[in-house]
Amino acid sequence: MSAFFDHLGQSGLGTTRREFLVKALAAGGSGLLLATMNAWGAGIASTAGAPPVLQGGGRGKKVVILGAGLAGMTAALELGKAGYQCEVIEARSYAGGRCQTARRGFTLSELGGETQVCDFDEGQYINHGPWRIPFCHRSTLHYAAELGVPLELYNNDNDAAYIYYENAGPLSGKRLRRFEVKADMRGNVDELLAKSIRSGQMDQTLSAEDKTLLLEYLVNEGYLNRDDLTYRGTNGRGYKVYPGAGNQPGVESDPLGFGDLLKSKLGRIYRSVNDIMSQSTMLQAVGGMDQIAKAFERKVGHLIRYGTEVTQIRNGKDKVTVQCKDLKTGALRTLEADFCLCTIPLSVLKQMDTDFSAEFKQAMQGNAYMPTGKMGLQFNRRFWELDHQIYGGHIGNDIKNIGIISLPSTQWQGPKGTMLGYYNFGATAAEVSALSHKERTELALAAGEKIFPGEYRKHFAKSFSVAWHRVQYSLGGFSTWSGESRKTAFPRLLEGEGRTLLAGEHMSYLGGWMAGAIESSWQQIERMHARNAA
Amino acid sequence: MSAFFDHLGQSGLGTTRREFLVKALAAGGSGLLLATMNAWGAGIASTAGAPPVLQGGGRGKKVVILGAGLAGMTAALELGKAGYQCEVIEARSYAGGRCQTARRGFTLSELGGETQVCDFDEGQYINHGPWRIPFCHRSTLHYAAELGVPLELYNNDNDAAYIYYENAGPLSGKRLRRFEVKADMRGNVDELLAKSIRSGQMDQTLSAEDKTLLLEYLVNEGYLNRDDLTYRGTNGRGYKVYPGAGNQPGVESDPLGFGDLLKSKLGRIYRSVNDIMSQSTMLQAVGGMDQIAKAFERKVGHLIRYGTEVTQIRNGKDKVTVQCKDLKTGALRTLEADFCLCTIPLSVLKQMDTDFSAEFKQAMQGNAYMPTGKMGLQFNRRFWELDHQIYGGHIGNDIKNIGIISLPSTQWQGPKGTMLGYYNFGATAAEVSALSHKERTELALAAGEKIFPGEYRKHFAKSFSVAWHRVQYSLGGFSTWSGESRKTAFPRLLEGEGRTLLAGEHMSYLGGWMAGAIESSWQQIERMHARNAA
Repeated sequence: MSAFFDHLGQSGLGTTRREFLVKALAAGGSGLLLATMNAWGAGIASTAGAPPVLQGGGRGKKVVILGAGLAGMTAALELGKAGYQCEVIEARSYAGGRCQTARRGFTLSELGGETQVCDFDEGQYINHGPWRIPFCHRSTLHYAAELGVPLELYNNDNDAAYIYYENAGPLSGKRLRRFEVKADMRGNVDELLAKSIRSGQMDQTLSAEDKTLLLEYLVNEGYLNRDDLTYRGTNGRGYKVYPGAGNQPGVESDPLGFGDLLKSKLGRIYRSVNDIMSQSTMLQAVGGMDQIAKAFERKVGHLIRYGTEVTQIRNGKDKVTVQCKDLKTGALRTLEADFCLCTIPLSVLKQMDTDFSAEFKQAMQGNAYMPTGKMGLQFNRRFWELDHQIYGGHIGNDIKNIGIISLPSTQWQGPKGTMLGYYNFGATAAEVSALSHKERTELALAAGEKIFPGEYRKHFAKSFSVAWHRVQYSLGGFSTWSGESRKTAFPRLLEGEGRTLLAGEHMSYLGGWMAGAIESSWQQIERMHARNAA
Repeated sequence: MSAFFDHLGQSGLGTTRREFLVKALAAGGSGLLLATMNAWGAGIASTAGAPPVLQGGGRGKKVVILGAGLAGMTAALELGKAGYQCEVIEARSYAGGRCQTARRGFTLSELGGETQVCDFDEGQYINHGPWRIPFCHRSTLHYAAELGVPLELYNNDNDAAYIYYENAGPLSGKRLRRFEVKADMRGNVDELLAKSIRSGQMDQTLSAEDKTLLLEYLVNEGYLNRDDLTYRGTNGRGYKVYPGAGNQPGVESDPLGFGDLLKSKLGRIYRSVNDIMSQSTMLQAVGGMDQIAKAFERKVGHLIRYGTEVTQIRNGKDKVTVQCKDLKTGALRTLEADFCLCTIPLSVLKQMDTDFSAEFKQAMQGNAYMPTGKMGLQFNRRFWELDHQIYGGHIGNDIKNIGIISLPSTQWQGPKGTMLGYYNFGATAAEVSALSHKERTELALAAGEKIFPGEYRKHFAKSFSVAWHRVQYSLGGFSTWSGESRKTAFPRLLEGEGRTLLAGEHMSYLGGWMAGAIESSWQQIERMHARNAA
């Protein structure tokens, strides 16, 4: 339902989360779900975990693929298997599109801004592009398996992680662990319902049998005292003194007051279950998410022409003609192909020289790319693990202009670690991106220092930031559609124009996810193949 | 509060879980918590994440350590640092005690039973001893860091994993995912409370402000419709059709009926939050939990005399005398030392020839060791991942004599995988241990085949089982105390006898955890050192 929202995960985003939820609901609207269902027959088939079977093969037909991101490389790989001749045009000097990982030596320029050369220590990195793979993204996992990319768990749901809210009524500025809020809110709610059942208030609603069964459930779920149905805490919210050696059974901690909790509104940091795409289990590529891009590149790299910018697309009756420019020599070259699969982000494509119809060009305007900012912070002590027992997860907070702070899910207890110092979207990201990298670093450090006073600045070593909307050839973190343009513009773009088809996360309901790029590519090469056969 | 219970985790154990909870409550009793608090001053200090500082050092005093498990090796390491002369006597031919991992060639004999030689393929293994490290077990994590043991996440809380209950009323024999039960129970409970608030039934209990705040919480927590406060499902319980490429926004799934859910009693598979020791984050050693034992062994292995059984302990006034036998040659040897740290499980120690006082011997009888069975099953396809999208976690079930079925949290999507085919305790484990290994394997396969019909037997390759109560030198999975003996016997044993002190998980409130062994060792060497100084 909500691509933005899935991105934000369940990590206690407070205002930001709510803001995007509202936006996403406004954009989608539940009526839209069924209305657009099956408008394209290929939809359901393509959400499967395997690429389409291209019956009969490509018989040597030529396809020019624009962009060597995951969508482009997926197409090159699968079309190649089916006997198509592919050439991939890529403006950057490397493959992967936004599937990037910043490590020592990685260079990134922002339009009208600075060029950063990442100076993290050897072995340290930040996934400033995609960073998580949901267990249900079968397509991404399919390629991780096929291409032999080692995976590891990404700890998206760590209740031991802190939350720190400055606007939380009586709990403002208090550093809490997520499990404290979860256990106490749920315990109190269970108590409230249990007592109302026992006092007969639910007699009109529930049968005697259901009342008994529900009471049993509530007592267990909420750690209620069986006799008086009162919640008085649980070790699940942490101990005051942990059980240990000798005569140390542990001392349970004191629950927060229910009134304070309600007034704090901190209950919003979790839901009954997370959105499916941010539930455990999430995974990541060992050594950086760009290992997925590199694995594709090992298969199809020989088909990629790097450092080559597309300057013109012309759809002919029998051929499509693409003009491109070698960025080193400036030499122009014209390519002819039977089909063009264009995976260039719409943010970029809509500014390019094409002969697409006015209607198609208009449809491209219905899409917008999300301003997105990420900050990697290398620390020389993993104090969050060694001194706070927080092994991965997110630090929920409402500190101005920060968004998510996330702890690394790799190199546990190693000598160094690289944290996601902020991950923000929209207006916030736009505002932050106006800062210099030094100022952005200061913003991130000032926020972290509130949560880990005396530690964050002390152990900080190096930083690297990105503002995706200022990155050439991307111009945004991920694609977003308004409800109206999903209805009109999106279906039009899915059809393609002449011999040119579009693919990428922007051509899916998995906006911003790697799976969106891959599955869209599967869908569009299937469509291309059907046209070729026809 | 409950060591057994912590072991069982939160994985939907149904009857077994409840049985142990009841047992644990009977054994502990909340009054005991404070009554025994601080009976030993050292308790709190020792639950910290670092070993004790042994001021002034050991000045060459000699300590004989019985048992090269984690408690024994912890003592050898720390006492060695402080200048004590240590010798460790170990009956087995390898160190680690119960911290074992079965891989190709590992041999295990059961008393009066079979000798199994593990024939798993290269790289496959099962942690048939300890298998999980809670984030809050600072002592275990301390040594993983100090000794350089690489860790990885253990996925203890995977809501995408199946549950399969044969006695679940209208949902009997249905394979469900945990997130379905969680989302629907919580959604319905939130709806019930929300509607009762709106209808004025909580007016006596809650202020107008709190009612508004609580409604806001419930709508968000339970994915309720804001207008009619009704729960109609959420993508968090999985989609019927997943969002994908093109015009595929996804089709949400249909919730289970609340009445059916209540009658199924499946709500018991989770609680508001897990017990703290089975919450995310849990970790494990990369390559098998025995890597922790091996890391200790690299430090203190030169102090260990392997294949040597302790035959006699005599406490003298100035010395302690230990007689032991070389199991190869049968040669007896007598050792004299200033102190003896005995880490031999009480199940074994109480049968040995010692001159402990009648009172001390009586105290040892207050302890019992849990019959514990585990089964490792190697499969040649990770069908649970590739075909079911279950990446780790537990399969909750109530199939007779099974207990927990757990999926591996390593080698994701690799060619092979080794599952925990069962993990059971108590009477169940005793019953299963009477079976031959072949029969046990059949028990595990028949159970798995119910959950994964047509797949489990098909992909099964090899198996390895253990019944810890039949393993020499262990005679049980882990130590348990009744409430009464915690009050009387336990404190007596903690004092030690003469120049002999006891250490191990049995001397802690972290029964069965590696942290119990380590922290008990820290506590007892501190005590020994204090006596040495005195």
